[in-house]
Amino acid sequence: MSTEAHAFIATSLDGFIAREDGAIDWLDGVPDTEDHGFDEFLDGVDALVMGRKTFEQVLGFGEWAYGERRVVVLSRSRTQASIPVPEHVSSPVEFFGGTPEDLFRREESAGTGRLYVDGGQVIQSFLAAGLLHQINLTRIPVLLGGGIPLFGPLDSDVWWEHQSTRSFPSGLVQTVYRRKETS
Amino acid sequence: MSTEAHAFIATSLDGFIAREDGAIDWLDGVPDTEDHGFDEFLDGVDALVMGRKTFEQVLGFGEWAYGERRVVVLSRSRTQASIPVPEHVSSPVEFFGGTPEDLFRREESAGTGRLYVDGGQVIQSFLAAGLLHQINLTRIPVLLGGGIPLFGPLDSDVWWEHQSTRSFPSGLVQTVYRRKETS
Repeated sequence: MSTEAHAFIATSLDGFIAREDGAIDWLDGVPDTEDHGFDEFLDGVDALVMGRKTFEQVLGFGEWAYGERRVVVLSRSRTQASIPVPEHVSSPVEFFGGTPEDLFRREESAGTGRLYVDGGQVIQSFLAAGLLHQINLTRIPVLLGGGIPLFGPLDSDVWWEHQSTRSFPSGLVQTVYRRKETS
Repeated sequence: MSTEAHAFIATSLDGFIAREDGAIDWLDGVPDTEDHGFDEFLDGVDALVMGRKTFEQVLGFGEWAYGERRVVVLSRSRTQASIPVPEHVSSPVEFFGGTPEDLFRREESAGTGRLYVDGGQVIQSFLAAGLLHQINLTRIPVLLGGGIPLFGPLDSDVWWEHQSTRSFPSGLVQTVYRRKETS
């Protein structure tokens, strides 16, 4: 099995993952009784990759949703010593100072299967490096008018293969796209 | 039947309707053999509303796709005399210098049913005025990395009711949203 990077993320209809100040209060409009397939997605994941901001955000949630899966925090400036990892984090956590390419090559050599890349900046950097293989993209039926966009600049167009789409009673629409090899 | 404004539009996965310079060359990646329901949508339309730029763009297509439906071109600066309407345009064309609210009130008084609002700026101005009732939104499976966004700033969140979603062999995903009354 070759190494792949997958994303699983939700945006507003206008493409934002958070308000300008990072707030995600608008997600309260989504009922948490719906199963959007995150656990199933996580079952196939070998290791997580996220930026420091996303890591601090998920630490703030209090609960640790990732079991004992290895977590790699991409951070050019922080070292492990500077962010204490709380006790409720059941995963081994590693801070990595290299580029997405560096990390991907290392994981390939180590025979890692699926990487779950999370957080807007990390997803953008994997995309820009041509290293994002699949994205599970959920659209929340709200227009925010502004905020932090999921997607950013690219050197050239990236085309995707549609895998599946489903909608939920809450109005969420979830689509899985796989990167086209010839893009 | 009360007056409503509907949009029928496609964007890239990162939310752009055109490249920065207005080019829509990336739409060539979509097979024109697929029926995305435009004719069916148009059947329910009583009049079209578009900005001057969109009007000039559809004039450039050479073919006129709107039958004999009335067209209102929103334009603060141009008058009818300054843009000659070519012979292949089978619709009556009116240039209107007022706001979306002005137009909507006038159409309400006239008993117009459905307005088809087209073009990024006009859709944004109807949205910002709280006058867009329904949107048929198609996502084309490509990331462009930049361009002219469909959505713009808003004074407050706008929530939508999911009506239906379908996907196409080409990878297009089309969702119909209806504005929530209590937004």
